[in-house]
Amino acid sequence: MTVLALHAVRRVAIIGCGLIGGSFALAIRKARPEITVTAYGRSQTTLQEALRMGAITDVSSSLPDAVRDADVVLISVPVGATHETLSSMRAHLKPTALVMDAGSTKADMVATAQTVLGENMASGASPEATSHFPLSHFVPAHPIAGKEKAGIAHAEGDLYANRLVILTPSSATAAPAISLATALWEAVGARVIQMDADTHDHVFGAVSHLPHLLAFAYMNGVDPSTIAMGGTGFQDFTRIAGSDPVVWRDILSTNRTEILAQVQGFEQALAQLKSALTEGDTVQLQTLITQASAQRKAWRVPAPLSDSNAIDD
Amino acid sequence: MTVLALHAVRRVAIIGCGLIGGSFALAIRKARPEITVTAYGRSQTTLQEALRMGAITDVSSSLPDAVRDADVVLISVPVGATHETLSSMRAHLKPTALVMDAGSTKADMVATAQTVLGENMASGASPEATSHFPLSHFVPAHPIAGKEKAGIAHAEGDLYANRLVILTPSSATAAPAISLATALWEAVGARVIQMDADTHDHVFGAVSHLPHLLAFAYMNGVDPSTIAMGGTGFQDFTRIAGSDPVVWRDILSTNRTEILAQVQGFEQALAQLKSALTEGDTVQLQTLITQASAQRKAWRVPAPLSDSNAIDD
Repeated sequence: MTVLALHAVRRVAIIGCGLIGGSFALAIRKARPEITVTAYGRSQTTLQEALRMGAITDVSSSLPDAVRDADVVLISVPVGATHETLSSMRAHLKPTALVMDAGSTKADMVATAQTVLGENMASGASPEATSHFPLSHFVPAHPIAGKEKAGIAHAEGDLYANRLVILTPSSATAAPAISLATALWEAVGARVIQMDADTHDHVFGAVSHLPHLLAFAYMNGVDPSTIAMGGTGFQDFTRIAGSDPVVWRDILSTNRTEILAQVQGFEQALAQLKSALTEGDTVQLQTLITQASAQRKAWRVPAPLSDSNAIDD
Repeated sequence: MTVLALHAVRRVAIIGCGLIGGSFALAIRKARPEITVTAYGRSQTTLQEALRMGAITDVSSSLPDAVRDADVVLISVPVGATHETLSSMRAHLKPTALVMDAGSTKADMVATAQTVLGENMASGASPEATSHFPLSHFVPAHPIAGKEKAGIAHAEGDLYANRLVILTPSSATAAPAISLATALWEAVGARVIQMDADTHDHVFGAVSHLPHLLAFAYMNGVDPSTIAMGGTGFQDFTRIAGSDPVVWRDILSTNRTEILAQVQGFEQALAQLKSALTEGDTVQLQTLITQASAQRKAWRVPAPLSDSNAIDD
């Protein structure tokens, strides 16, 4: 038994219908109107809003109901809630379903999937006690699209247009599952690439998680009486500090080993700058700033990311 | 002898015709076409470009030539070159001239003006040895407008439209000089406010200089192999790291006491976040992120700064 091809998909379930899940729902409804989209989440207000917006075609009153007939399930809850969500749904999934998450950290997700679904692969597992949903049908995904504003109210059908989606399949992942995941994200306009989960967490620890940590620290440390005078330098530097606390609590916690290692590189670079300042060594100070400025100027907005939509993490 | 009123100003000299000086020249030429604008700077290419753009009406071949007949002199060189520039021009200034700088740090500028011009006030000064240009005609100014791109090529006639300009007069500054400085910046579209130089340096140390220092440190510390995957979170957080090295060497050096004190507040806030991460204290982590996020969300773009032009420092 394998997953369906995209053209055969009839029903998608969105678990957690916020910015990420709601935008996926809006986009897949637009691209494939023949697909019904249901959603389940803790907030009835959110689900009703998603229905009103036309993002979903019906609301499920329980997690089992949501996934039971779904050909595709997208888990778009805060990273810290993924384990419990996956555990709760596994016995109710169709064996042919594709399940994806949309979290910003991936090594933990590979491990979670192994823990929750892997036992189905063990020869000793009792068929009665476990679902037949196979680990090979789980594809970890990370859409590099978002905003600092969370929630269904900010969902947009073109959130993923020209955005990057990273898939981090493991050796256990089946090729048809990767193909369907790729086709789905491409159907909503994204460009899909694959990398292993550890590489993903190193890269996004560096370009996303660490900047968030530093922006949070800056906002907490700055004299509040001064910020009314902030210009666009301040505005841009601190924009990501306004991100959702629960989402970022989970991302930073989940990728903490990587982040704590990388913050040391930052601290060493800061120490060099402070030392040059303290010693009045303007030659060294200029050298360090020139290095930073050249590195930044050499950076180019990735082509599919260069339009006006905001992209975070 | 006092400075002129704006309607009587016939000649303005721009010393250092980059983004800041060139934009002022373009704007004043547009607002007051009867005023001739000359410029002096180290780069003939820059001066010829300013002439070609219509920012200035003529090029001066020396600093004395530039300031000799000027009713208003704007010094727009990197902060570290201001002392020498002011020293070199003082003997050649008209006693009725207004002189302004446009630097991003101000306590040092008040001290520099006192050092270079203050001796004219001392009873023992020899009239032959010194110019008669009085300290009271020097007005330190900081236009809160700029971009991360420096140079005359990026100058715009509306760079100061609806921007804030901070004047930091000292007790030695004459009221008519403050009035003319205010009228000039208002003529190019800016909104002018006054604060004392130490307050200025504290405020802009917090909302501008410290973010630049942190962005430089981040760019120097980050694994270069990862940044190709940066999205708009990365893009916005690091934009100011691309700023001009000489300009920022001087700003950070000049305001280093304030900046080194403020970086401690950042480091304490970062240590709290790291501690919560290390200990796996997700409650404390969420509390700290919530505090940062709330502080950022409560911030509002200052009304005159809310249009689309980029504003730095």
